[in-house]
Amino acid sequence: MGKDYKIVLTAGAEQWIDALPMGNGRLGAMVYGQACVDRIQLNEDSLWYGAFTDRNNRATLAKLPEIRELVMSGKPEDMHKAEDMISQYMVGTPISMRHNETLGELDIALNQHTPFAMGWTPNSDDAGEHRIELDLMRGIHTVTHTQNGVHYKREMFVSYPQQVICIRVTADQPDAINLDMMLDRCRIFDEKVPDDRRPGKMKRGGGWAGVLLDSNCAVDENTLMMEGNAAGTLFAGGLRVITDGELENPSSQLLCRNANEVILFVTGSTTNRAEDPKKAVLDILDAASAKSYDDLLSEHLADFETKMRRCELNLGEEPDLPLVERIENLKNGQKDNSLVALYFAYSRYLLMSGGRENSEALPLQGIWNQEFVPAFDNKYTININGQMNYWPAEVTNLSEIHESMFQLIGKMAEKGRDTARIMYGCRGTCCHHNTDMYGDCAPQDVYMAATSWTQGGAWMVLHLWNHYLFTKDKEFLRKWYPVLRENALFYLDFLIEDEDGMLVTCPSISPENRYVLADGSETPICAGPAMDNQLLRELFGACCEAANILEIEDELTPEFEKCAKRLHPNKIGSTGLLLEWRHEVPELTPGMPHISHLYAVYPGSEINWKDTPKFFEAAHKSLLRRIEHGAGEGGWPLAWFICEHARFMDGDSVAKGVEKILSRCRPSNFLQAYGRSFSLDSTVGATAGIAEALLQSHTGVLQLLPALPSDWANGNVTGLRAQGGYTVDLEWADRALTKASVRADFEGPVEICGDMRKVYCNNEEIPTVKTEYGFRFEMKTDIVYTIS
Amino acid sequence: MGKDYKIVLTAGAEQWIDALPMGNGRLGAMVYGQACVDRIQLNEDSLWYGAFTDRNNRATLAKLPEIRELVMSGKPEDMHKAEDMISQYMVGTPISMRHNETLGELDIALNQHTPFAMGWTPNSDDAGEHRIELDLMRGIHTVTHTQNGVHYKREMFVSYPQQVICIRVTADQPDAINLDMMLDRCRIFDEKVPDDRRPGKMKRGGGWAGVLLDSNCAVDENTLMMEGNAAGTLFAGGLRVITDGELENPSSQLLCRNANEVILFVTGSTTNRAEDPKKAVLDILDAASAKSYDDLLSEHLADFETKMRRCELNLGEEPDLPLVERIENLKNGQKDNSLVALYFAYSRYLLMSGGRENSEALPLQGIWNQEFVPAFDNKYTININGQMNYWPAEVTNLSEIHESMFQLIGKMAEKGRDTARIMYGCRGTCCHHNTDMYGDCAPQDVYMAATSWTQGGAWMVLHLWNHYLFTKDKEFLRKWYPVLRENALFYLDFLIEDEDGMLVTCPSISPENRYVLADGSETPICAGPAMDNQLLRELFGACCEAANILEIEDELTPEFEKCAKRLHPNKIGSTGLLLEWRHEVPELTPGMPHISHLYAVYPGSEINWKDTPKFFEAAHKSLLRRIEHGAGEGGWPLAWFICEHARFMDGDSVAKGVEKILSRCRPSNFLQAYGRSFSLDSTVGATAGIAEALLQSHTGVLQLLPALPSDWANGNVTGLRAQGGYTVDLEWADRALTKASVRADFEGPVEICGDMRKVYCNNEEIPTVKTEYGFRFEMKTDIVYTIS
Repeated sequence: MGKDYKIVLTAGAEQWIDALPMGNGRLGAMVYGQACVDRIQLNEDSLWYGAFTDRNNRATLAKLPEIRELVMSGKPEDMHKAEDMISQYMVGTPISMRHNETLGELDIALNQHTPFAMGWTPNSDDAGEHRIELDLMRGIHTVTHTQNGVHYKREMFVSYPQQVICIRVTADQPDAINLDMMLDRCRIFDEKVPDDRRPGKMKRGGGWAGVLLDSNCAVDENTLMMEGNAAGTLFAGGLRVITDGELENPSSQLLCRNANEVILFVTGSTTNRAEDPKKAVLDILDAASAKSYDDLLSEHLADFETKMRRCELNLGEEPDLPLVERIENLKNGQKDNSLVALYFAYSRYLLMSGGRENSEALPLQGIWNQEFVPAFDNKYTININGQMNYWPAEVTNLSEIHESMFQLIGKMAEKGRDTARIMYGCRGTCCHHNTDMYGDCAPQDVYMAATSWTQGGAWMVLHLWNHYLFTKDKEFLRKWYPVLRENALFYLDFLIEDEDGMLVTCPSISPENRYVLADGSETPICAGPAMDNQLLRELFGACCEAANILEIEDELTPEFEKCAKRLHPNKIGSTGLLLEWRHEVPELTPGMPHISHLYAVYPGSEINWKDTPKFFEAAHKSLLRRIEHGAGEGGWPLAWFICEHARFMDGDSVAKGVEKILSRCRPSNFLQAYGRSFSLDSTVGATAGIAEALLQSHTGVLQLLPALPSDWANGNVTGLRAQGGYTVDLEWADRALTKASVRADFEGPVEICGDMRKVYCNNEEIPTVKTEYGFRFEMKTDIVYTIS
Repeated sequence: MGKDYKIVLTAGAEQWIDALPMGNGRLGAMVYGQACVDRIQLNEDSLWYGAFTDRNNRATLAKLPEIRELVMSGKPEDMHKAEDMISQYMVGTPISMRHNETLGELDIALNQHTPFAMGWTPNSDDAGEHRIELDLMRGIHTVTHTQNGVHYKREMFVSYPQQVICIRVTADQPDAINLDMMLDRCRIFDEKVPDDRRPGKMKRGGGWAGVLLDSNCAVDENTLMMEGNAAGTLFAGGLRVITDGELENPSSQLLCRNANEVILFVTGSTTNRAEDPKKAVLDILDAASAKSYDDLLSEHLADFETKMRRCELNLGEEPDLPLVERIENLKNGQKDNSLVALYFAYSRYLLMSGGRENSEALPLQGIWNQEFVPAFDNKYTININGQMNYWPAEVTNLSEIHESMFQLIGKMAEKGRDTARIMYGCRGTCCHHNTDMYGDCAPQDVYMAATSWTQGGAWMVLHLWNHYLFTKDKEFLRKWYPVLRENALFYLDFLIEDEDGMLVTCPSISPENRYVLADGSETPICAGPAMDNQLLRELFGACCEAANILEIEDELTPEFEKCAKRLHPNKIGSTGLLLEWRHEVPELTPGMPHISHLYAVYPGSEINWKDTPKFFEAAHKSLLRRIEHGAGEGGWPLAWFICEHARFMDGDSVAKGVEKILSRCRPSNFLQAYGRSFSLDSTVGATAGIAEALLQSHTGVLQLLPALPSDWANGNVTGLRAQGGYTVDLEWADRALTKASVRADFEGPVEICGDMRKVYCNNEEIPTVKTEYGFRFEMKTDIVYTIS
């Protein structure tokens, strides 16, 4: 086994945002890690408020011709009239989708006096030698501490094979564990405030919390069960306690007394997953209880660690310091490359923990949500964020995690058919700029700069194509071809002709940007913005290529080809910038963080150094102009900018960007926080950029270390994936590649970019051919070829 | 008709807490009063999250003997052990009851461009001559303003007879009304923040709000309907629009164009009231639409104004100023007695608007709640607050409003039977310190100083007795006697013997106070605190007296009598203070706002100037000591203190207290705010004290102007009510009574406290008899007797 990647802390979280996230795709947990009174906030991925509702607006279709006429006129007064009509006739009803909800929390207290009184206030007041470790490769969280001379250890993992959270508490002295346990579900207030009625004491801030469940009682002598109703979605969460101590049961709590060992199993379910969630929970708890803790752990490691070990980045020795101190040192200007490697491992850890083969797709915060009405509903904003969550998936060798996104795409394809037909009178399927767990495709919000955009589905399904490009899995492509095709079909009906006889999306917006009209007023509303054309060219192209690969005679193929040619091409404006809109118009916000028209650079590939160097240059200029105006200083924009820097082969900007990401994260868990929550895309997105800095394959040739930052002078990476089905290990020293190992899933030639190198297979040099961009050699499957 | 009492404002509310409350007991509305884009936040009194759940703890009974033994020991370590056990075994499960939820909001916009885009931000940006009036006597809200030279008027009332909110928009020029209307349901964020993507513009703060409903569509060409599910409680809210203009219907909105008049009817219902809430809503809307607006208004006035006019306080001329300025002037030290009179009318207005004969009882904020999980769940805290809401009801002549509380008491009696039996093995019924719409009687929270108190029900049912004392309605008493009796019966089983052979409640607390134990640690846990004994003496006494009045032979009557005598009497401590606990122990918090042991002064009557002067003096000393330590400076404690001052016949402290209440209220609506909400008891409670300053009857004699503040030198009041069925008008000048008129509901003698005065009836002097405290005369029913 490889290197350890661990988050080490010496104090538990005081607030939710600083807790450590764990999960198995379906179950999520935020672990505060306090020694005496602790909170483990719980999520189940299918716990969403209410069932699917048809939000498609029946009034849109009749008004669409008028809206389009106004937009195509382009006159300021017409544009504003169009806005009025869009805000009335082209919105979802209700205007918002369903939202994700927390499952609740597991409260535990070790050797405490009335821990549940005065609100639950996590603390480690009586503890010494407190140490928290999150082992990223193994998915194991450990809290150790001493209390009254006893050394306690709490170990936790979230088993994917058994679908259960497992916790084991042990002590180094007999009968020393007295553990109070409770399941609850109310708004979390972490704040502590002075208790004006008890001088010198603190109490929980935020007042008394309303409980949002129907019951949380013991259902047998060692099982607590909570059940509730989220606007019709019924849910259950259960705790099973296995111990050699006495177990008392005062209805809502389990009190373990004088134990040597306490094992807790926690799980949950909802009517979105099981007909009888309570029964589903009991079945899981029974199955877990039937196994030994050690067996459960081995099973977990075989699943979790195996996948995590596939890809590792090493940028030098790690200092033996708590993460909080390392981040602090970084902020104070101290370089710490190994922190980048730890962050790289952590992003993959989050993907592995937050989304799995048969879980729901990763929403905005993943499965870590403490709220009942979370920011942006913790659903899927798919004009960047929902997609960004999956950017690291293929390249960092977690391809099967991508599956969770695909099952959402499947639901969207079905729901979007109604949206296309009802709202726009079109065949095929489409989605606006958001979706929810049910795949709702109707418009979201009445936000003029985002709502009236119908290309969310097109972007999503390009992940299917991307997955194919990395895996070359024809069966996969055959399964999903109809979905790609149906998304493209929508545009055959939806596109309209503009004054140049070109086909444009209308009405549309360039996600979330605005431009200035002739009279000085502004609007986001437009027709055929650059991003739409880039997405549709990729989508039509993918459909045609897929039909070809799969040898499908599709009557739509020629139509797709024709349509693609009638889209406006990318254009360069009078100042050398890539145009974001169909015409050269002044932007309202030059520092706009959305860089929608740079989609074609990343995650798209149409604009690249090899095939389209002029657009590549204009795009780079556009990116730099945004930066000049203050864009991309943090959050998901910074993550996107880092990926762009990698594609522009600007390694030092990649490193600088990653350093900013690390300086702005919560210092106990790398999360990119805002308000009471965080953004998962902001947290993991930059990891795709790190991978792209080390390996690129989007142009059809492998680029090894295309954007290696000069600060990362020495290092190695194993298990990166490239389009075409390649797995690549790289080593470098003094900023130069020293060794590369490539393994192919398919027989055939591979082209490597750069100077000619010697290639070995089983210690024998094999022949190479010089090409325009580098050299080429033939590969057999599953054999390692070493380039020195 | 009498004087006008109006709240006048010249600007609409910027936030919810400053909006003007309206209602008919069942439907509540907070009206922002903005001219161009306005919000009317809606409530329906039966919209509570989830159905009743049995929260009674099955583990309590077995542990009760041990808990009691620990409490009776009194040793510090035993008391803390008792706390542990109480927090585990004597809590509800779940630990919290159900909570009230908002119904949603009606959004309206007059002549606006895309009002629903960028979030709903109420404003009057294009308006001039903006004036808002809330006519308290008539229950009519009016907004007038000009826009583009047109004078607009919006009039609104909430009809109790028709159970519908009625709004009429008119203009002084033809076809001038363009009104956008929408029903929505999401968390309200009033904050506006700069829009970083649109330099110089503002946007709604708080981010995008998740919608908490299933649908909000037009169900026919002039009706919008929203429907949803609050954890199993299904609800509907409807808007019907009647207009002579064109009405467009883009699904979630109704757009009225070029109208002369627009009438809006709004109502709601839930499965807690109707089997099919949507049908119930449509029925109400149909019935309202079948009447003319003017007829609806007349019907409303006949109901509302008639009751409001029963009791009026006049303390001099009102300045013609907006309320905001008057409050500001008051804060700057300018006396404004008429503001007290306006506040008095306003409190009665709130009672009339918030609770009606067949509505739910007034919870903590009444029916004005914008939240989904409100502070304290917007339920009933019945260790003071739930009761205080009704303190002004009898004395200010709104006796039928009290009915809404009684129907809650009825539900509690039923639910509390299980609580008594399951948790304590007792007959009868009981309730802890909270209840909810379903009458849940199990313990609430794990708050040691409040949770383990079983006398909430006893206090509540004393309102039944109080209502009888004011009305002498024997049929009422007969109906409710079984409930009084069952509440008393509980104590025959629940009380235990202490070391003195007296009967005590155990475990108990003196609501929410704590005392210091022998080792310096503190606890709230005790047995037989003063308040419990006061409540139980009143309850047993009421039962015995009621049985006597009703001529019921009840085998429990002698037991009640016996039990009452074995309760600890009130006691005076070594420093002359009334003791709060069974033993003289040091209080932890000398400035404790709860004055539970002064219950017997107000709202109780056991301790009074006439029958128990020594305790009266000790109680007064206790009150003053609390004030010395900072208690009673605001909120409901101040309201309670004001009532106590009145009973202690300290008029100047009453006036000073009321001035503080007025200085601390929101200056547009008198509400006593905290956080995002307000407290109704704090807002209306002091009005009982104002009434008590003018008239008292709890000792069996009528005291006229017993605590007239010297600042209120001249004035008059009509329609105050006294125990025994009397209605009293008073006039005074230069701080002395000039004339009193008394009307009796029953024939018989009345005793007036004070110097002998001449009494006239139909202009003839009638004979009077001097008594120990004043004089007495015989009264016939429904004839006015004038005392000069």
